[in-house]
Amino acid sequence: MIASGTLLARYEDVRRATAMLAEPLSDEDCCAQSMTDASPVKWHLAHTTWFFETFVLEPYEPGFRPFHPAFRVLFNSYYNGIGEQYPRSRRGLITRPGMDKVWDYRNDVDARIESLIVICASQPGSQTREIERLIELGLQHEQQHQELILTDVQHLLWLNPLRPAYHDDSALLELQSRYLEPAPLHWLTFQGGITEIGNGGTGFCFDNELPRHRQYLEPYALASRLVTNAEYMAFIDAGGYQDPALWLSEGWAWLHSDNQAVQHPMYWEKRDGTWHEFTLYGMVPLAPERPALHLSYYEADAYARWAQARLPTEAEWEHAAMSATCEQPDARPADAVAIDQLYDSGWQWTSSSYSPYPGFNAQPGALGEYNGKFMVNQYVLRGGSCVTPPGHTRATYRNFFPAHARWQYAGLRLARSMQADARL
Amino acid sequence: MIASGTLLARYEDVRRATAMLAEPLSDEDCCAQSMTDASPVKWHLAHTTWFFETFVLEPYEPGFRPFHPAFRVLFNSYYNGIGEQYPRSRRGLITRPGMDKVWDYRNDVDARIESLIVICASQPGSQTREIERLIELGLQHEQQHQELILTDVQHLLWLNPLRPAYHDDSALLELQSRYLEPAPLHWLTFQGGITEIGNGGTGFCFDNELPRHRQYLEPYALASRLVTNAEYMAFIDAGGYQDPALWLSEGWAWLHSDNQAVQHPMYWEKRDGTWHEFTLYGMVPLAPERPALHLSYYEADAYARWAQARLPTEAEWEHAAMSATCEQPDARPADAVAIDQLYDSGWQWTSSSYSPYPGFNAQPGALGEYNGKFMVNQYVLRGGSCVTPPGHTRATYRNFFPAHARWQYAGLRLARSMQADARL
Amino acid sequence: MIASGTLLARYEDVRRATAMLAEPLSDEDCCAQSMTDASPVKWHLAHTTWFFETFVLEPYEPGFRPFHPAFRVLFNSYYNGIGEQYPRSRRGLITRPGMDKVWDYRNDVDARIESLIVICASQPGSQTREIERLIELGLQHEQQHQELILTDVQHLLWLNPLRPAYHDDSALLELQSRYLEPAPLHWLTFQGGITEIGNGGTGFCFDNELPRHRQYLEPYALASRLVTNAEYMAFIDAGGYQDPALWLSEGWAWLHSDNQAVQHPMYWEKRDGTWHEFTLYGMVPLAPERPALHLSYYEADAYARWAQARLPTEAEWEHAAMSATCEQPDARPADAVAIDQLYDSGWQWTSSSYSPYPGFNAQPGALGEYNGKFMVNQYVLRGGSCVTPPGHTRATYRNFFPAHARWQYAGLRLARSMQADARL
Amino acid sequence: MIASGTLLARYEDVRRATAMLAEPLSDEDCCAQSMTDASPVKWHLAHTTWFFETFVLEPYEPGFRPFHPAFRVLFNSYYNGIGEQYPRSRRGLITRPGMDKVWDYRNDVDARIESLIVICASQPGSQTREIERLIELGLQHEQQHQELILTDVQHLLWLNPLRPAYHDDSALLELQSRYLEPAPLHWLTFQGGITEIGNGGTGFCFDNELPRHRQYLEPYALASRLVTNAEYMAFIDAGGYQDPALWLSEGWAWLHSDNQAVQHPMYWEKRDGTWHEFTLYGMVPLAPERPALHLSYYEADAYARWAQARLPTEAEWEHAAMSATCEQPDARPADAVAIDQLYDSGWQWTSSSYSPYPGFNAQPGALGEYNGKFMVNQYVLRGGSCVTPPGHTRATYRNFFPAHARWQYAGLRLARSMQADARL
Repeated sequence: MIASGTLLARYEDVRRATAMLAEPLSDEDCCAQSMTDASPVKWHLAHTTWFFETFVLEPYEPGFRPFHPAFRVLFNSYYNGIGEQYPRSRRGLITRPGMDKVWDYRNDVDARIESLIVICASQPGSQTREIERLIELGLQHEQQHQELILTDVQHLLWLNPLRPAYHDDSALLELQSRYLEPAPLHWLTFQGGITEIGNGGTGFCFDNELPRHRQYLEPYALASRLVTNAEYMAFIDAGGYQDPALWLSEGWAWLHSDNQAVQHPMYWEKRDGTWHEFTLYGMVPLAPERPALHLSYYEADAYARWAQARLPTEAEWEHAAMSATCEQPDARPADAVAIDQLYDSGWQWTSSSYSPYPGFNAQPGALGEYNGKFMVNQYVLRGGSCVTPPGHTRATYRNFFPAHARWQYAGLRLARSMQADARL
Repeated sequence: MIASGTLLARYEDVRRATAMLAEPLSDEDCCAQSMTDASPVKWHLAHTTWFFETFVLEPYEPGFRPFHPAFRVLFNSYYNGIGEQYPRSRRGLITRPGMDKVWDYRNDVDARIESLIVICASQPGSQTREIERLIELGLQHEQQHQELILTDVQHLLWLNPLRPAYHDDSALLELQSRYLEPAPLHWLTFQGGITEIGNGGTGFCFDNELPRHRQYLEPYALASRLVTNAEYMAFIDAGGYQDPALWLSEGWAWLHSDNQAVQHPMYWEKRDGTWHEFTLYGMVPLAPERPALHLSYYEADAYARWAQARLPTEAEWEHAAMSATCEQPDARPADAVAIDQLYDSGWQWTSSSYSPYPGFNAQPGALGEYNGKFMVNQYVLRGGSCVTPPGHTRATYRNFFPAHARWQYAGLRLARSMQADARL
Repeated sequence: MIASGTLLARYEDVRRATAMLAEPLSDEDCCAQSMTDASPVKWHLAHTTWFFETFVLEPYEPGFRPFHPAFRVLFNSYYNGIGEQYPRSRRGLITRPGMDKVWDYRNDVDARIESLIVICASQPGSQTREIERLIELGLQHEQQHQELILTDVQHLLWLNPLRPAYHDDSALLELQSRYLEPAPLHWLTFQGGITEIGNGGTGFCFDNELPRHRQYLEPYALASRLVTNAEYMAFIDAGGYQDPALWLSEGWAWLHSDNQAVQHPMYWEKRDGTWHEFTLYGMVPLAPERPALHLSYYEADAYARWAQARLPTEAEWEHAAMSATCEQPDARPADAVAIDQLYDSGWQWTSSSYSPYPGFNAQPGALGEYNGKFMVNQYVLRGGSCVTPPGHTRATYRNFFPAHARWQYAGLRLARSMQADARL
Repeated sequence: MIASGTLLARYEDVRRATAMLAEPLSDEDCCAQSMTDASPVKWHLAHTTWFFETFVLEPYEPGFRPFHPAFRVLFNSYYNGIGEQYPRSRRGLITRPGMDKVWDYRNDVDARIESLIVICASQPGSQTREIERLIELGLQHEQQHQELILTDVQHLLWLNPLRPAYHDDSALLELQSRYLEPAPLHWLTFQGGITEIGNGGTGFCFDNELPRHRQYLEPYALASRLVTNAEYMAFIDAGGYQDPALWLSEGWAWLHSDNQAVQHPMYWEKRDGTWHEFTLYGMVPLAPERPALHLSYYEADAYARWAQARLPTEAEWEHAAMSATCEQPDARPADAVAIDQLYDSGWQWTSSSYSPYPGFNAQPGALGEYNGKFMVNQYVLRGGSCVTPPGHTRATYRNFFPAHARWQYAGLRLARSMQADARL
């Protein structure tokens, strides 16, 4: 049992953080959907609430009655176990309920969840543990949507020819200051062997991080930081987007599909000969030292090939990240360096297809649909990004997107295979 | 020259009427776009304003400066002569400018147009006449968009599973009362011969109504009123949607295209065995005596074939409508009856493809794009509907839509060919 | 009753002519389908045979048994009244039956039809007249497919990068000689008034040419010949494909749709700075004096607008063509000139949507599907082309295709509206 | 150096085997393309020849001249390093060159390759070794296309409503006799641990089988044979295609996409209440004891989930297959059984995404495009099928297709995870 005060405070914190993300936005901003892959902010606000209502209140609140019967369908993302879903591509058409009604929905569910937390505190037992587990899952789920709120609204604003900013730029300087001194790139080497990956801790983790299991790794090296915008510009200038030898066959087709002619990362735009980038702070000159982001898997893979490197596997990434956490016991001691930009700069594409770990079992019931049913034709991203809620991610965390997805904060960290015992 | 007071009052009336249409709607309702063919209410509000700014203020206001430079592209519907256009399919993503800004835009342009009207009043001459002509065109244009605001918002609300009403239903009873006593159907006969169609009056008309010209009509008969819901239900019950012999080949393909299986008019829905219809007042039981509306050309054509009749040509329709106006000199005198539901019930599909009248000249400049460039693969609708602004339409008015369009208030009036001098 | 000898000879002639069209082709050439709008030669050979089998033998041959039961579906083009149809887009996959079997099919049906013709000769009466009418319809139908065989195989060979010729080029010089002396363009003027169009003769005509009826025509002028390649090149050189003001809105969209960027007529290709054209004789230098062909309606319309003219209506075209036939009674006698290139050079787009004549009745039964069900969103072409079988077409003949169709031999003859009694 | 006699004989054998596959087919059968994923037989015949011409003759034949310059583009499948490619979706339109010309092409290249082999025999050295390596690669490549010829022609014939057989059925009974006594299913258990996979032998292998490397396997069990048609029918009867809980999210969407409603394996068809299956021998009653084939990855995965099992990884499969070859040292000794249907019954979907082995290097030049560039969004199939050329496949062989592919002979072998040291 989690101390009720702790869980209550955490619940309030996370829920408040979500609400704060909507503050700079108008009701219109919150309602629009820029593409099927993205959802309106209002939908995110309601769906995360629906999650608590459906998976916590419905089974455990005495005398449960739904806030609004239609919401069961309207804000169900993809849980067939719960029932039908309103079509994803039409989420931007839900002008009713309006924002005010969605805030009511959030407040109502918040009050009821908070009551339940208080009741639980006085009734220890297995049911209380299950309720608390589900509430924690709901909070983790909400944090995932916090990141999506930002990525989705950025995509919406980018499609607006006025290129409006989500935020005014005062915060921008602060954020960018993190990157003022670009770290020089080091190659960190790992001898591999039998390693363990997957979550073996006692804290929260998603089912897709389980079970912890062994993997054999051949010796490899990993870059100490992400590929920068300056480095990616060199790839562009070298004709990287014009050379089919650098691209996966499917990537080359994607580059030229549907009237698009991809020539640069998604949010880049040349103005008066200078690269700019559309950010949550509006259109700003591209910062050369910052990590190159908003890349598809295809672009990350092509860049790596051009750089005579490759993407890491997720096992390599996790092993290295755990080593960093554990002060890198198997890195070369002489020039042991920290691994930079693991969790706070950009998600990092791995070459690993998203698939179940050996022994994986989805949880029973509709919540078993949370992760497992997406394990095909998606690629794992590791780490975290500057829009990931602090504390949400970890070394064993498995993010995943299809290879063409670009509106996420996805970059890359280079890897190389090594001869056993060799040095770079 | 129009009396300044008159034009000023008319300008204010029309503009105010548009604004009133947005009153029952939230900002979210106004921003969303339900399909490419429809536009957001906000876009309609801005585009009609853009029309006055672009075609009146820009050439004639001394020291003209645009309200916002980006609006030139953002709210340009399709005038290549003015420049680029923001993609039509993305109008629902224009969350900025927000509604408040669009109201500012309307107010600003209103003030400037009103000033211009006042100035004009004191400066008679050819420029004043041209300005007044353009303002009148803008007002007629605005009235067209008033109707589109209602049809477009109805489509949006229909796609919402909550089926929200645009209006509360108190007005509904009043509106429906018009139809309480369905008129019995009469066939009105016309001997045809050399007739004239096209606008020959002195009031406003669109360029596509010109020039007035002769057409030879063979004898024909026209139904005294529109096909009713009850009649259309009989067509459905008789298997009309299942019999390919009743359908144009393209219509039959359309019935089965893209996962749709059309089985009834667009807004119809069977609930507990009873037909209901989605209206601006929400979902209501289908009124059997009201005209069947929201039909595609294909459906109207198939119904007519089933009823051993056909759609009228636009010349037949106009000739009959003018006869009605002129007290029907060539109808059978014994049971001469008025033609009902000409302008206030539903647009009436004709079998006439939308094409230029003999001698048609589009006006010069970008305004020449208003009508002429759409004269292919569209069909003419005549009359007017219950959502057409009063006074906007007339016997020579040519509305037009592609054959598959169903979200408009489009129904049908049957016609038949006759032997010369014969009677039905 | 047609004299049996005459009908028999005609049947044999037409059927033999079809077979001869396949002579230069391999079985592979005959089997492939280049696009959904076109059909394989083998399919044409079988479908025209199916037409006789289904509409003549099945009802009238004593003890009728089908040649092969599956052919009823396989070679049914679009007659729902007969039953199901094999999907049009997959006609190129019918490798079985093979060509030898299709020749067997033709021979078998030919023998049976010929027997029937002989029997009919000895049994005058209404049934014989009906059989003979249907056989004549089948032959007219077959001639339509003779033209399609050539247009469809040309399209197929054009998509082959080897650009193989259908014929060797010895015949080419002969064919081209027709055009060695381009006629100077005259404008022929017509005063219009009440005219009659539609077939009023005693020979064969299709149901869509009926009934003959009156139309009022305003005064107009028609070009004495088709627009030439040289004239069309001038349109291209003047930037015609780049100026939206010249195009219908739908045409402008079509120009840029689906990765195509239309810049010239379909079979044109610039080689070493010189325009060439793909023909049935292979790729040849473009002949400036020949009519510009393989134009879409959109291109024909844009050219006409650029030339400060327009497309004729089908009534204008027919009236003028009949006048020519009748030695132009209502043309100005002083400079009466012949109308060139009416039937043997290229089909001529008209501005008339394909729709039923006043009083049109489709024939009963499945044959009623021959023409009537296509009367929407297609445009009428008049005249005939160099690949139309001699004698097949006439002044009242109505060919029709959708506005985007370009693989037909479709060009244009300019028209202009005139003031009554005015001269150009 | 391979003995010239041996290589020559092998070359002739393989090439002759390809030609024999075309024997039951007409030129029309050989020319048609049933879908973009499949190629015409003629194209396979020419492309395999192009492979020898391009990769062997062009660099190594003294005074090389191409058989036909256009073939370089026409029969290049996907090698950007060689140059442009004729569009894949139009391969069925290449009616010229005709089949006779393609046979000439094969004969010409065969004679030249055979000369080169004889010359090589007298000139040992590194160049000879390289030539022989490339010829062997060409032969392996040709064998891959032998299988594709059969799968592609089967798909073509299936789309023909006559359902014609590729072969007469005399051979069928013989083929089916292999399956008369279905083997009872055993679970074979493997303790895992550090294993090695990848090709470590001296015989031919593809680059994607290299390098041999270590993988750690958790304990697992593998079914002794493939899932049978009878078992798969039980899945269908249990509502497997209707239960979303059994399907990957993408698989569920695929089931319902594009007007298809997948309800059974691709070539199954119920006739008079009995399942039949379309085979190379035509439509035959479904044999319950034969392996269920022509499954997509989605279907294989859903079946496995329903059977409370899963798909094996490719490492598990290979480890087990090698164990079988090595007399299964780590299977339970008491009831040690052979693994059935490894290579001759049906390809077996694994859960492994097709990705490079650690240390993989594509070969330099255009041949590096052979495998590497497809390593995204495809899944590995292991084993071999009844249409795989004998001797072509092996335990380390990696076949791969996208998850929706069904026209291949793809079935599944179940796997399960085990507790260490536990027994099923």
